[in-house]
Amino acid sequence: MTQEHQMTGESRLERGRRALAEIDGQAGENVVAALADIAPDFATYLLEFPFGDIYSRPGLDLRAREIATIAALTAMGTAAPQLKVHIEAGLNVGLSREEITEIMMQMAVYAGFPSALNGLSAAKEVFGKRDVLPLTM
Amino acid sequence: MTQEHQMTGESRLERGRRALAEIDGQAGENVVAALADIAPDFATYLLEFPFGDIYSRPGLDLRAREIATIAALTAMGTAAPQLKVHIEAGLNVGLSREEITEIMMQMAVYAGFPSALNGLSAAKEVFGKRDVLPLTM
Amino acid sequence: MTQEHQMTGESRLERGRRALAEIDGQAGENVVAALADIAPDFATYLLEFPFGDIYSRPGLDLRAREIATIAALTAMGTAAPQLKVHIEAGLNVGLSREEITEIMMQMAVYAGFPSALNGLSAAKEVFGKRDVLPLTM
Amino acid sequence: MTQEHQMTGESRLERGRRALAEIDGQAGENVVAALADIAPDFATYLLEFPFGDIYSRPGLDLRAREIATIAALTAMGTAAPQLKVHIEAGLNVGLSREEITEIMMQMAVYAGFPSALNGLSAAKEVFGKRDVLPLTM
Amino acid sequence: MTQEHQMTGESRLERGRRALAEIDGQAGENVVAALADIAPDFATYLLEFPFGDIYSRPGLDLRAREIATIAALTAMGTAAPQLKVHIEAGLNVGLSREEITEIMMQMAVYAGFPSALNGLSAAKEVFGKRDVLPLTM
Amino acid sequence: MTQEHQMTGESRLERGRRALAEIDGQAGENVVAALADIAPDFATYLLEFPFGDIYSRPGLDLRAREIATIAALTAMGTAAPQLKVHIEAGLNVGLSREEITEIMMQMAVYAGFPSALNGLSAAKEVFGKRDVLPLTM
Repeated sequence: MTQEHQMTGESRLERGRRALAEIDGQAGENVVAALADIAPDFATYLLEFPFGDIYSRPGLDLRAREIATIAALTAMGTAAPQLKVHIEAGLNVGLSREEITEIMMQMAVYAGFPSALNGLSAAKEVFGKRDVLPLTM
Repeated sequence: MTQEHQMTGESRLERGRRALAEIDGQAGENVVAALADIAPDFATYLLEFPFGDIYSRPGLDLRAREIATIAALTAMGTAAPQLKVHIEAGLNVGLSREEITEIMMQMAVYAGFPSALNGLSAAKEVFGKRDVLPLTM
Repeated sequence: MTQEHQMTGESRLERGRRALAEIDGQAGENVVAALADIAPDFATYLLEFPFGDIYSRPGLDLRAREIATIAALTAMGTAAPQLKVHIEAGLNVGLSREEITEIMMQMAVYAGFPSALNGLSAAKEVFGKRDVLPLTM
Repeated sequence: MTQEHQMTGESRLERGRRALAEIDGQAGENVVAALADIAPDFATYLLEFPFGDIYSRPGLDLRAREIATIAALTAMGTAAPQLKVHIEAGLNVGLSREEITEIMMQMAVYAGFPSALNGLSAAKEVFGKRDVLPLTM
Repeated sequence: MTQEHQMTGESRLERGRRALAEIDGQAGENVVAALADIAPDFATYLLEFPFGDIYSRPGLDLRAREIATIAALTAMGTAAPQLKVHIEAGLNVGLSREEITEIMMQMAVYAGFPSALNGLSAAKEVFGKRDVLPLTM
Repeated sequence: MTQEHQMTGESRLERGRRALAEIDGQAGENVVAALADIAPDFATYLLEFPFGDIYSRPGLDLRAREIATIAALTAMGTAAPQLKVHIEAGLNVGLSREEITEIMMQMAVYAGFPSALNGLSAAKEVFGKRDVLPLTM
């Protein structure tokens, strides 16, 4: 798989940039921009490893990958800004609002009711913002 | 939805027992049995809420639910026995071994390389046990 | 115990609603209300399992249960809104302010000084709000 | 309070040693002994701060303190050896086995079912060991 | 070591106050002041154990101690206010801004990209505040 | 920096392999070998990102990097096997045993006494193994 990518001639950075745009949309661009003056190399790593390497792998589709990410970030409870980005990302790659809230309710079982409640609260905020946008992204 | 279940006449406990058998198989039965002499009511709650309520909801299929659970337990890193049960459960509801290892690799991004390595180590153990069984469960 | 409850004829939902009102007061009502438009079934689960099942069990009094919850949420450090609700709840079921701050100081031993400091900061906020209310709830 | 202690003439170390013996019994002595060749000063700190300072404070009785500690360690899920010591400690200061298992079941609400299951499993092990001892400690 | 300190005649509280001033500067004073009306004894413990005992030990210099603290708080992700205090502290004891951002980038490996991103975001805020001060502390 | 590396002509994988050998020694090789039959691509990522990218950066020396890693893994408490590898790594890059135990004692302040105790217990095991080897690695 790693080999296969090398054969397309596309660099990890280019592949990562493309994957980030598809998955996280504007929210992802904002994260990269915010890193420019404090840790620009970290923006490169973020594009290369998570997006260029992991999300670009063929063994699991993007829908399944966002289910995994939303579940993990909800359960961990330590990454509120990233959870909001990935609620957006989930919608971007085809998850319905109902599916996202189902994932969060399920996390009550594994990480407790507070993590589910805080996840639902983040979802409410993200859904609400998209409702008032002229065009959903 | 809650209403719908009440109309089938099947109790939460019966529904939970059926869901547990389908999802966790023998490993789930073992958990329930282990609770008998220390906290039998908790076995009832485990059947009723996670399995009778959450896993029985129609909004997300069992394959997606196990992706979420495997991701969360790998990221949390505090639930080794439950992670092994859900690697089994993932295979039971149709996830491939490759899909399970993809989820774990992805967790390196969100919860660090140690959580991914410990998840892969658990998967290796579960896959290995199934290989030596006369019949996979 | 489960049986005993069934015999009173009171449903888990009714019992949970009564326990929530007694323990969390208005703060608990607010959580349930906030779920109405995003995940109404989850409000039902929240009333049924934590309050209708767990807090309604006779084996541990409400004072002891709130000590456990305040300790756990302070130590976890991932559930700030819920910690505030349970500082209120602790006062509602008879814990003194001093007892609540003692629990938080003790958490420095088990989860580190930051978790204790953040717990004390939440307590300061909740106590301060009650001081300016015309009637404590 | 700090002043009061200073007036008894008992040092923090002496007070801590006495509190440790009362609360943790032999299990506490074993922890102190295990530190002797790797970090003897840390054994001193352990006696002085948690036991000489915190557990010796009058604002919360030992029963309540052990409820808090057992809840926190069960919820955290990262301190299995210490949880077992404090299940013993809980029994030493007057908690019943039923009360301890109630605390653990309640943690399912705040930290998820796996943390409760792992806590119950630790309790089962500790209770089992005490059953086969000629004299409970 | 403990003995050595006792021989200087300086109390743990005095030694802790001196260490806190050197390491955390004004931010540390603020924490102590904020505890005055809710838990004054805890301010004493904070000065005595972390600063009077641990940071005053000769086996590791303050630069190394702040590397350890910044790394741990970034990885834990549950102590945002304390992380900011220790980014200041790191600068106070001689770490460069670059070294602090390197520590945070490294935490992506051990605790995931969100913890590194949230750490970098805290660093950006602290660095920015110092840039607008008439005199950096 | 990223550019500088590209100019040496050494690939991230080669650079990572060299850094892993220098830092983690045989323990690192064992981790890579264990991944061969379950997730060989993940062994590549592990060499490339943590070791080829992060540990190869010039902004922080290896001694400081291991202080950060040992602190973080001790505080997290969810990565026992990786903590042991990095206690070895710390010794490999020049940390003394005393410095490693100082880091762990300090973690009592930030993540609680159990995390420090479990870290010291891991250190005791690693130090003990090296004492009985004919040649320290």
